[in-house]
Amino acid sequence: MVQKPSIPKGTRDFGPLDMAQRNYIFDTIRSVYKAYGYEQIETPSMENLSTLLGKYGDEGDKLLFRILNSGEAFSKLNPEEYVENGAIDSSAVTKKVCEKGLRYDLTVPFARFVVQHQNEIAFPFRRYQIQPVWRADRPQKGRYREFYQCDADVIGSRSQINELELVQIVDTVFTKFGINVAIKINNRKLLTGFAEIAGFPDKVVDITVAIDKLDKIGIDAVKDEMREKGLTDQAIAVIEPILGLSGTTAEKIAQMRSLMGGHSVSGLVSETGLKGVDELEELFGFIEVAGIRQQVEIDLSLARGLNYYTGAIFEVKALDFQIGSICGGGRYDNLTGIFGLPDMSGVGISFGADRIYDVLKGLDKFPKSLESSTQLLFANMDSTVLPYIISVAGQLREAGVPCEVFPDSVKLKKQFDYADKKSIPFISIVGSDEKNANVVNIKNLYSGEQKQFERGDVQSMLDFLK
Amino acid sequence: MVQKPSIPKGTRDFGPLDMAQRNYIFDTIRSVYKAYGYEQIETPSMENLSTLLGKYGDEGDKLLFRILNSGEAFSKLNPEEYVENGAIDSSAVTKKVCEKGLRYDLTVPFARFVVQHQNEIAFPFRRYQIQPVWRADRPQKGRYREFYQCDADVIGSRSQINELELVQIVDTVFTKFGINVAIKINNRKLLTGFAEIAGFPDKVVDITVAIDKLDKIGIDAVKDEMREKGLTDQAIAVIEPILGLSGTTAEKIAQMRSLMGGHSVSGLVSETGLKGVDELEELFGFIEVAGIRQQVEIDLSLARGLNYYTGAIFEVKALDFQIGSICGGGRYDNLTGIFGLPDMSGVGISFGADRIYDVLKGLDKFPKSLESSTQLLFANMDSTVLPYIISVAGQLREAGVPCEVFPDSVKLKKQFDYADKKSIPFISIVGSDEKNANVVNIKNLYSGEQKQFERGDVQSMLDFLK
Repeated sequence: MVQKPSIPKGTRDFGPLDMAQRNYIFDTIRSVYKAYGYEQIETPSMENLSTLLGKYGDEGDKLLFRILNSGEAFSKLNPEEYVENGAIDSSAVTKKVCEKGLRYDLTVPFARFVVQHQNEIAFPFRRYQIQPVWRADRPQKGRYREFYQCDADVIGSRSQINELELVQIVDTVFTKFGINVAIKINNRKLLTGFAEIAGFPDKVVDITVAIDKLDKIGIDAVKDEMREKGLTDQAIAVIEPILGLSGTTAEKIAQMRSLMGGHSVSGLVSETGLKGVDELEELFGFIEVAGIRQQVEIDLSLARGLNYYTGAIFEVKALDFQIGSICGGGRYDNLTGIFGLPDMSGVGISFGADRIYDVLKGLDKFPKSLESSTQLLFANMDSTVLPYIISVAGQLREAGVPCEVFPDSVKLKKQFDYADKKSIPFISIVGSDEKNANVVNIKNLYSGEQKQFERGDVQSMLDFLK
Repeated sequence: MVQKPSIPKGTRDFGPLDMAQRNYIFDTIRSVYKAYGYEQIETPSMENLSTLLGKYGDEGDKLLFRILNSGEAFSKLNPEEYVENGAIDSSAVTKKVCEKGLRYDLTVPFARFVVQHQNEIAFPFRRYQIQPVWRADRPQKGRYREFYQCDADVIGSRSQINELELVQIVDTVFTKFGINVAIKINNRKLLTGFAEIAGFPDKVVDITVAIDKLDKIGIDAVKDEMREKGLTDQAIAVIEPILGLSGTTAEKIAQMRSLMGGHSVSGLVSETGLKGVDELEELFGFIEVAGIRQQVEIDLSLARGLNYYTGAIFEVKALDFQIGSICGGGRYDNLTGIFGLPDMSGVGISFGADRIYDVLKGLDKFPKSLESSTQLLFANMDSTVLPYIISVAGQLREAGVPCEVFPDSVKLKKQFDYADKKSIPFISIVGSDEKNANVVNIKNLYSGEQKQFERGDVQSMLDFLK
């Protein structure tokens, strides 16, 4: 019986052009990570569920893809234990028959890796990792069940040099892509500071969740939300002006320092907030000497990853294309604690490959060279000439030219169509006359220009094929 | 509660050196595939089980990793239907709760891809694919549950040019690796020919299975096995001399042609066998003009992939290292038929990355340069010098030198240990004297040689860092 082929919803096939464009993204990111001494690791696609469960919240646990134990997974189960009121107890059975799950992100496997291999690792450990992850999310436009993450983290150092280098990496990557971005930076300690100088140190999460919506809902709605969460008008009067702070980075930092050092209205000081100001100031001092080409700015309403970030928070937005964040990250202080290695501070970023693909596509910034991989097609007209063609093609490949010999001696029209479909820019049609004269004809299919070369004159062919 | 971290059995973590060495293998293979016009595709890790089941035999079906449907997979099951005699019917339940499985190889997904995207593809379609596959095999030394395959196939052409190019690819890849190999070639049609001229056309599988063991069990045991399978002494007397055929490739081909064209003992002719001789002769004619550097030979006992190969069969063995086949492949005539696209002939090869890794490791053939990724470490002694160092490091990265600034100002001993552990070959120790003099010191940690450079003299630094 013939099956109509299909793939699971939320997954994708990538054809040759997709792959060339995706490799361009991954290779660019990889080359920049390497320039900063980040080293690649890979972890297994499957992790033990004990490693994954409880790390992503209840919602995350539900989105894990679970792998059925191999063998007769259900045979050993006693139905009496797993059937209640005529229904199968799904979660009890699941626990029994699935011990492994697919990687949900790269962060938890990285933490597991660091703890498991701590004796082999040189700290501070700069690692990058580019691998797919899987989430049983409801598929929709731009959201897939299998997608790549491209993470870099350095763990085992508290220095702001690390934050700087991540900003430099982001700057270099997007400059190479030709995408203009704004790199927005905040610090979790400042957010704590807001709550402390407002007199509501226990409401830092509520305050930040509200502030995070500033872009979308506007200042009045943010204030309403803070009020609903129990903040007083005086507390809101402390916070509101901070969100409106303007001026240069230096001016913003000076104002924040003044506010955190003793607020004129509340009279409260935030030591944590001051620490955050110190960190931001040090980081921006480095940024100034490093010569960043993209726009870098303090954004006091930036609050992503609130649950685990403890210092710097990063987010990158494309300036000329409407899309969500295309890169983000931050500092965390206890990623490996859950696996038994406490007090390891780290900071990391993650590039959103699928969104970057959309931006490059939307802005038409993919290099045109990605559209063809083969440079030259040798047409196949006469089987007696094939040995000659095989030998010439071999010379050119040796010289670095990707080329193909059309394998079948079919109508020339069909061979031209093939070159066209694969966007091959040059064709060589060699018959017995050329073979006997020991020459090679090459035609540029875009310009129409045609030239004849001595068979041994590889250099002239290379010049023409450029 | 602290968990002791571990990974599922049969899976592996790859650290920085592993990754550098594995990338060297994949990048080398990829570059050669590209030189011959092969284009990369990727397919999803998960396929519908309807795509996978029945393609790998009963044993293969058992080795598929199945993914539990998301949501409450078991809730909708009626226990009465799935419980028999107090036991759960494992295979019935599995069918109900798992619709997806992990990729088992790259061949079936490739066939599915070709059929699904046939209208977008330029045929003959040359594709390569380097992705992990998963098998629920019992883990043992050298056998993993997750491992990479590196396949190239061309589909939609019957020309022996394709076989030639795969031999050229194999030749180039192993020559680049510095591994001496024997490329063994046979043709499935000759195996059919053996059976036909021996008078047992229906016993081709039995005959081939026996012949395949020649290396391991010797000719007498092979003859015993053929006898057990019902072959007569006369039939065996036809086959035995073929296995002993010696001489040059041309001589072997001539002898095969004579035997297939009318055997002196049996008097039988094999048209299929003669077709196989034609194919081998054409292929070896091409091989001769192509200038293959590795050893290439006809091996009439080569019988791998018997179930699906219909023409050429390839196998590659390392000559200087004891290990099984490190690359193999062959021609098949009906790979896509099961998905509704008949009569597509193709031929492909697959490199065994894990075994190639073992050979390169065993023969000490990995380039030494893979052992370090960072070229230069800037020590961190004095935080007031950091802005100067950041700027110098930026210049060098711009010039293509991967370098690191040690992020924390800790004891120099610790920073040297770090350089040592990461095999970083050069260190720069810059203090305020160097900063004030606008110079940079760089020391070669292997030779001990140290030099001082003007800050702007990047070219001299590059020369020293080579």
